[in-house]
Amino acid sequence: MTAIPELRVDGDRLWGRLEEMARIGATPAGGVHRLALSDEDRRARDLFRAWAESLGLAVSVDGIGNMFARREGREGREGREGTGAAAVEGRPPLIIGSHLDSQPTGGRFDGPLGVLAALEVVETLEEQGVRTACPIEVANWTNEEGARFPPAMMGSGVFSGRFDLADALGATDPDGVTVSDAIDRIGYRGALPVGGRPIVAALELHIEQGPTLEESGCEIGVVTGVQGARWFDLTITGEEAHAGSTPMSRRTDPVAVLGRLLVDAYRRIERDFAPHGRLTFGVLAAEPASRNTVPGRVAVSVDLRHPDDSTLDDMERVLREEASRASLVRGASWRLEDVWRSPPVRFAEPCIEAVHAAAESCGYTSMRLMAGAGHDSVHTNDVAPTGMIFVPCEGGISHNEAENITPAQAEAGANVLLHAALRLVEPPGADMLSAPTHQPGGAA
Amino acid sequence: MTAIPELRVDGDRLWGRLEEMARIGATPAGGVHRLALSDEDRRARDLFRAWAESLGLAVSVDGIGNMFARREGREGREGREGTGAAAVEGRPPLIIGSHLDSQPTGGRFDGPLGVLAALEVVETLEEQGVRTACPIEVANWTNEEGARFPPAMMGSGVFSGRFDLADALGATDPDGVTVSDAIDRIGYRGALPVGGRPIVAALELHIEQGPTLEESGCEIGVVTGVQGARWFDLTITGEEAHAGSTPMSRRTDPVAVLGRLLVDAYRRIERDFAPHGRLTFGVLAAEPASRNTVPGRVAVSVDLRHPDDSTLDDMERVLREEASRASLVRGASWRLEDVWRSPPVRFAEPCIEAVHAAAESCGYTSMRLMAGAGHDSVHTNDVAPTGMIFVPCEGGISHNEAENITPAQAEAGANVLLHAALRLVEPPGADMLSAPTHQPGGAA
Repeated sequence: MTAIPELRVDGDRLWGRLEEMARIGATPAGGVHRLALSDEDRRARDLFRAWAESLGLAVSVDGIGNMFARREGREGREGREGTGAAAVEGRPPLIIGSHLDSQPTGGRFDGPLGVLAALEVVETLEEQGVRTACPIEVANWTNEEGARFPPAMMGSGVFSGRFDLADALGATDPDGVTVSDAIDRIGYRGALPVGGRPIVAALELHIEQGPTLEESGCEIGVVTGVQGARWFDLTITGEEAHAGSTPMSRRTDPVAVLGRLLVDAYRRIERDFAPHGRLTFGVLAAEPASRNTVPGRVAVSVDLRHPDDSTLDDMERVLREEASRASLVRGASWRLEDVWRSPPVRFAEPCIEAVHAAAESCGYTSMRLMAGAGHDSVHTNDVAPTGMIFVPCEGGISHNEAENITPAQAEAGANVLLHAALRLVEPPGADMLSAPTHQPGGAA
Repeated sequence: MTAIPELRVDGDRLWGRLEEMARIGATPAGGVHRLALSDEDRRARDLFRAWAESLGLAVSVDGIGNMFARREGREGREGREGTGAAAVEGRPPLIIGSHLDSQPTGGRFDGPLGVLAALEVVETLEEQGVRTACPIEVANWTNEEGARFPPAMMGSGVFSGRFDLADALGATDPDGVTVSDAIDRIGYRGALPVGGRPIVAALELHIEQGPTLEESGCEIGVVTGVQGARWFDLTITGEEAHAGSTPMSRRTDPVAVLGRLLVDAYRRIERDFAPHGRLTFGVLAAEPASRNTVPGRVAVSVDLRHPDDSTLDDMERVLREEASRASLVRGASWRLEDVWRSPPVRFAEPCIEAVHAAAESCGYTSMRLMAGAGHDSVHTNDVAPTGMIFVPCEGGISHNEAENITPAQAEAGANVLLHAALRLVEPPGADMLSAPTHQPGGAA
């Protein structure tokens, strides 16, 4: 490769776009509220589309609202340039991107960093006159967070074939609104079929959402895979009773059962599954939710994570044992329903290596690590070699309005994304600035 | 008194009305969903009004929606009969009644028994040609449950002057609807001023909502007062974090704090404050309520009860100690906000005695006991001598769709209500069937 190693993104421009995007759904505490398929999501999508089109990219939207902003490669360039043709045709692309939706009170970088850095990569290539062999598509995946419509990573999951399109469109938010209705309401149901087309590879830049990089003093995380996750709905059923007139000794209070379960489950998971095991009860509710009635039922969500699937089996067993023990003492009953199971994922070695080499060549310190969170890359990994790049975030804090990174960290991540992408689509030695058509996909 | 001791209500008619009322807001599990000022409440009110008017009673509604169906006494009878004049004028009445609203998944008897038995008492007097010295008003108090609009016992509380009318009208339900809007929507804001008029005495028949009468084998509970209650909102604040990528050791998880608090608070209240102390966490919520985010905050309602006010102080201290201890361990913070404080109430001795003597004269076994629940009688007791009659309920179960009593229990309660009422408005020895005008209110 000639000239290419010196390519660098424009960090100021990237940061400016991140700040502009963060104004959509901005919360007073400095975070964002931009739930999937909401009005805020629509505005974020509109802005992304406007930026992409101003770079001459052709923006396509598929049937679940995933957006693809395509820059043609050397092959097929003449025939397609300027036609705005949909991404469905032509050479298989490299996909780089992430998501623009957020948690209810989320941070500014979880998702947008990956989308806007990908846009910055494409703009840098355009400015420098670098035409890659295969096309590059900047993706904005629909509903990565799953906060409004479970399951998470919905758009990429349908794209990869792991989720059924009709099921995903039928998913409802707490108000009973379906994905299908929400997508039509914001005008983002596209004509492009969801998935089913070849991809050379996929890369995603994301904040770590954990403390490892910051604590290790590393600038870049070379992500080797994603830990496994299991989601459950746990219901504990006791007996509704009057809060004033029912003696404690005659109650079957599911809240008391929950208390015992919480203490024992946290104790065992924290003691026996450290440092990788994680247990989260994100949603709590009691029924009938009246302050002078002993609840008849409590319902909680459970999120278990671990990099090792058999250890996840052990953690699930602990959860069941403690639910059973706590219920038995009070004479209550319990039920654990599967919501989602995501086995640990291992990314493709060529992608891992491309990220590592890109960090090296740019002069950033790096380390290998596993992702704690689910990402759209888990799904693209089903249909194409996939890799991820992490940058540190302040205090490891994420899914929180206080989530933060520095402009230098954003720039470093984008530079690694740029060079990892080039390594995947251009075998070392090729000269993009002048080389004629050649076969991409050596990494695939 | 001549002839009066033999008076008995018509148990079949009372039971038929209870069954008809229970169809309004009936739930599949056999309970009722008839929240205050809802469409179901409107239908219950309409039915009550229709029954009362068919008995020739004049129905008045006050500014908070309390309903009063008035039967004139001997004095003022000729001048007022058939005029439908509002209850605001004329001789001070005896008030007998209860409430028609329910918990979200409540029982069929909590409230309606007291209202419909009072109607049955009046119908029995009418049929038997018994004209009491002072008027009798059958009351349906607005929003006793407080399940939709806190605080509970709202209508009687405004009537007694304990609550401010404007505050009560401004109270909101979880959807932000005010009492004022809800009352107008169902058409039950009346012209009658709320309270501020003399009352001879008040009586309320209610199910016990606890197991004491059933366990003691007693048919009638002579209620001597109501235990104290304190309501709080407890908030525990930790730190929002990503459920997948934040190690357990770096979390400030308010759900873990809640677990510890629940276990320790239940343990101490159950051990140190038995058998009268009661602790209930009726409402639980986590924020932001996303299954893959460690909550930043949990909010729970707390309901403490005890017949002794200084013991309630001790229980509140336990709650604060355990909230503090549990929060400290995890580095979280907590806040306890007062929602409502109801000191223990002692009913008027003449009313207690009238209920006891009525049970004796009817041949029912009875015992004295304190009410565990709050009742509208707590508020009427502020402005007039008040008494309550309890009948057993199956298994002591209440605030539950399975709440149940037998027709014989309903009839017994109504008979005691009838004779206790007569004892309060007619000094023994008077002959209601023929006596001329005399001064009522000997009990007041």
